[in-house]
Amino acid sequence: MTRYTAPTKDTQFLLHDVLKVSGQDVPGYAELDPDFTGAILEEAGKISAEVLHPLNAVGDTEGCHLENGVVRTPTGFKAAFDQVKEGGWTGLDMPEEFGGQNMPYVMGTAVGEYFSAANHAFTMYQGLTHGAASAILAHGSDQQKATYLPKMVACDWTGTMNLTEPHCGTDLGLMRTRAEPQADGSYKITGQKIFISAGEHDMADNIIHLVLAKIVGGPEGIKGVSLFIVPKFLVNEDGSLGARNALACGKIEEKMGIHGNSTCVMNYDGATGWLLGEEHKGMRAMFTMMNEARLGVGMQGLCQADVAYQNALDYAKERLQGRDVTGAKNPDGPADPLIVHPDIRRNLMDQKSFIEGARGFLLWGASLIDRAHRNEDKAADGLVSLLTPVIKGFLTDKGYDSTVQAQQVFGGHGYIEETGMSQFTRDARIAQIYEGANGVQALDLVGRKLAADGGKHVMAFFDLVKNFAKENAGQDEAFDRDFLEPLKKASKDLQAAGMYFMQNGMKNPNHALAGSYDFMHLFGHVCLGLMWARMGKAAMEALAAGTSDPEFYQTKLATGRYYMARQLPATGMHLARIMSGADTVMALEAANF
Amino acid sequence: MTRYTAPTKDTQFLLHDVLKVSGQDVPGYAELDPDFTGAILEEAGKISAEVLHPLNAVGDTEGCHLENGVVRTPTGFKAAFDQVKEGGWTGLDMPEEFGGQNMPYVMGTAVGEYFSAANHAFTMYQGLTHGAASAILAHGSDQQKATYLPKMVACDWTGTMNLTEPHCGTDLGLMRTRAEPQADGSYKITGQKIFISAGEHDMADNIIHLVLAKIVGGPEGIKGVSLFIVPKFLVNEDGSLGARNALACGKIEEKMGIHGNSTCVMNYDGATGWLLGEEHKGMRAMFTMMNEARLGVGMQGLCQADVAYQNALDYAKERLQGRDVTGAKNPDGPADPLIVHPDIRRNLMDQKSFIEGARGFLLWGASLIDRAHRNEDKAADGLVSLLTPVIKGFLTDKGYDSTVQAQQVFGGHGYIEETGMSQFTRDARIAQIYEGANGVQALDLVGRKLAADGGKHVMAFFDLVKNFAKENAGQDEAFDRDFLEPLKKASKDLQAAGMYFMQNGMKNPNHALAGSYDFMHLFGHVCLGLMWARMGKAAMEALAAGTSDPEFYQTKLATGRYYMARQLPATGMHLARIMSGADTVMALEAANF
Repeated sequence: MTRYTAPTKDTQFLLHDVLKVSGQDVPGYAELDPDFTGAILEEAGKISAEVLHPLNAVGDTEGCHLENGVVRTPTGFKAAFDQVKEGGWTGLDMPEEFGGQNMPYVMGTAVGEYFSAANHAFTMYQGLTHGAASAILAHGSDQQKATYLPKMVACDWTGTMNLTEPHCGTDLGLMRTRAEPQADGSYKITGQKIFISAGEHDMADNIIHLVLAKIVGGPEGIKGVSLFIVPKFLVNEDGSLGARNALACGKIEEKMGIHGNSTCVMNYDGATGWLLGEEHKGMRAMFTMMNEARLGVGMQGLCQADVAYQNALDYAKERLQGRDVTGAKNPDGPADPLIVHPDIRRNLMDQKSFIEGARGFLLWGASLIDRAHRNEDKAADGLVSLLTPVIKGFLTDKGYDSTVQAQQVFGGHGYIEETGMSQFTRDARIAQIYEGANGVQALDLVGRKLAADGGKHVMAFFDLVKNFAKENAGQDEAFDRDFLEPLKKASKDLQAAGMYFMQNGMKNPNHALAGSYDFMHLFGHVCLGLMWARMGKAAMEALAAGTSDPEFYQTKLATGRYYMARQLPATGMHLARIMSGADTVMALEAANF
Repeated sequence: MTRYTAPTKDTQFLLHDVLKVSGQDVPGYAELDPDFTGAILEEAGKISAEVLHPLNAVGDTEGCHLENGVVRTPTGFKAAFDQVKEGGWTGLDMPEEFGGQNMPYVMGTAVGEYFSAANHAFTMYQGLTHGAASAILAHGSDQQKATYLPKMVACDWTGTMNLTEPHCGTDLGLMRTRAEPQADGSYKITGQKIFISAGEHDMADNIIHLVLAKIVGGPEGIKGVSLFIVPKFLVNEDGSLGARNALACGKIEEKMGIHGNSTCVMNYDGATGWLLGEEHKGMRAMFTMMNEARLGVGMQGLCQADVAYQNALDYAKERLQGRDVTGAKNPDGPADPLIVHPDIRRNLMDQKSFIEGARGFLLWGASLIDRAHRNEDKAADGLVSLLTPVIKGFLTDKGYDSTVQAQQVFGGHGYIEETGMSQFTRDARIAQIYEGANGVQALDLVGRKLAADGGKHVMAFFDLVKNFAKENAGQDEAFDRDFLEPLKKASKDLQAAGMYFMQNGMKNPNHALAGSYDFMHLFGHVCLGLMWARMGKAAMEALAAGTSDPEFYQTKLATGRYYMARQLPATGMHLARIMSGADTVMALEAANF
């Protein structure tokens, strides 16, 4: 019933008009000219729309089933997975030596958005594998890389991340899974992990579990946690599959959404594993991948918002209900389409201006990751580390709200599973929760990232906004008024909030932490404001240069104006909440709630 | 897994300390002394917690099933329904002559909150019957009342409302269901209705459908719509059941939530019906019940928020994760409970301050309905008509957000159906949609209610706020600063928004309509601000009078301070959005979205 159309034109606009990727001095970016990226995006859009999206509702309805230790994925998933593999999509941004195509991360992200929007649950199998492969790439020995990466880059073997246990999620120091060293250098892993996405399924020959565990006799708490490679089937020296390892999926969880992905309870009963990276440095190994993984989840917030928006837009154009108060727009029909009504417009513009701003923010973030990795640029690394919790927390919160708004356009029909709008909402909900619940993102932002390296990354961000505003002021009165002034005002609110934390968080950290969530949202709005200002500038430049597609660029400007006028005023509210401090937040004894 | 505890103490506080019901000159209020209402609330709380809530998850998991035209409700529903009937709960606020207990609507609402919080889907069977009975009470002939009301008040027969058709929801003028007059004064009803809650089920001997239809040959559009009584089984003159009527449930919808309620496609194939009220005045008959029905749905927003909050609070107190940054609170345990963390507090306080403010708003609204009906007080009627879309739209939007926040406290466990938090979210979602989607509430508020009777009801509201602030200023510095000043500021924002609509809506109604949704939320915040100021005042009075339970009242003050400091600043954002006008909202051609 639903459709998905990849926004290739919008992605191209961001890559070339806004980020100007092929002109950047990042290794691998020179080849990213519009024809090249256009061809990739078109192809990715095609498989997303034609292969992955038609399976989205199937995955939701059928779900995954555990039968005698085997997990059966929904009808059609395996064939589609094979098609994705054959197209070379799984290794797009992986090194050539392991079978990848070595493209920049920004391209992996652009393509990943389409796949995930088309089918969130399905794309997780590939996404988790990418994450696990990245960890092996960063921390594995040469032998580990040679053994696992070619298979994982091709997704012949998939990967998982095993962190959570029944009694601990965020606080991994409480972990009980243990690793006993063996004479041959391997470990016996014993314990139970929960919420393991893609933990068991029928689409790959082997599943490579990365498992956090404590080596027996090691330090207490988080400092004693190490990371292990624990394959479902042991791998022989020649690369062929050996014995079944002592691990099993004990249960599949019934969830609110993403039914097409198997969320497993994984039981390790003395399973054979090998240390990945250093002893007791498991958290460091996990953190290496954190920026990418969290950016990927932020992306998922945008993805469900976009596919839901596209379908809400179709409905708003087709569904005839009521009349335009300023005069009938469809006088020969029984009623006007929903889209004539101002409040439906408000709803759609909220969605559209968020989605396009978010896509800009996401691809900017991905380009910073490329710069951090490929240029070993510390400033870019610091900036993207700062922005990562904002991308994850803000885009998933607003993405969820946006998806709910899209569902609302359908009225009662949005509540019926048949239209597919409920699935978008139910699927979008997970992104606010996993990979660090959004409250944890806010804590990471305010408790760690803000003050990192003496606060220089947040200062760099403020400079970036200030310089952008300065460099682009005075050229166009309307641009100054509609874009730069609101951006400066919003950025000032963010600075005031940061100042409040500095002045008050020292005496009592609760004054900062009680405002952390609002700070994350305030920061997100400023980032989207910045992206809209950048997009507005790019649109003006294209129009001034006599583009052949003026409507596209005028629409960008109009959408940006909407964001600036109607979304950015949220910064004042967040600032007021922040500056009310911790007193009202912490006033009650727990017993008096 | 979940629990529900009726907030009887809070309801009592509102009825007696804040609304001071037994001192009001409303017929039937004098008997509402604290002992009397306390006994009713305790008993209602008991059945809610012990009978209805344990069936909440059962209803979600089992759902309703249509087999050979018969709808089977979930296990245990019938027995619980019988228990509710035997307790006399179904006729609490219905006239004695039809078997009711003639209590004020405010008591029906207080009790209804508990029932609906305990089990939303279950309570709808009773709620729909109440709505249909109210319509017959208001518009039925003496014979119709005598025939249907005793059975419906007792819920031996249940009722439904049939408005929506596949191609029309809000725009009922497009309706196709037709009524052909018969020689005996009855009509033959033919057409299809959808989204009929409780349309068919196995808990009652008969189902009385109220069906909107167009009498053949009558006026076009909404002016030709009439309301009909169409029973599932025809009723003989002696009150016994006669032949099966020509109507049937064609399908049960698969929905996002409220699975325990059967949402039916109803097919009428020349079914026998009788006119209820006047010919072509069907909409007027529906509107009579609208305030009550919409207030009831607003209540449902609060209900799911409350039950979700209660369970999130339990989890926050029990789940050990991380340490209080200002020093361990549970040093002998492996970690501190979640509730020590400022961001968890922020989350819980957002929920708590909303829920308690919303409950105050709801019961105030219900008391205005009593005054409007029992005292025939036109001012009260006008005021509650104005506030009704705010109660419906604001409480269900914020109620949903609050429920989502409660789910968030559970982290990954909140996404798993087993904990029950997902069901609260999925169930809460419907209240934003049915009984007029919230965009329609905003339209009703700004397009109709605001200017009704020359705008005198909104002026009365502003006077009410102003007078409250004036009468209570200067007695307590902290109260002035923490309650009255924020309230005045918020009310000023609301007035400025109203002024903007007046000045700009004349030239172009889109300037008002594009801000309607924000106005509804802005209005809602001012109402909750007013309620918190009233609650704060009541708490101060109780403390000054030397209450034996100072903690309860101090907690009220602290919670109110939170609302004023942290929720009320939203008014500035809504005002800014409103005052940006319609230009950015309406800028795009439909084709350019």
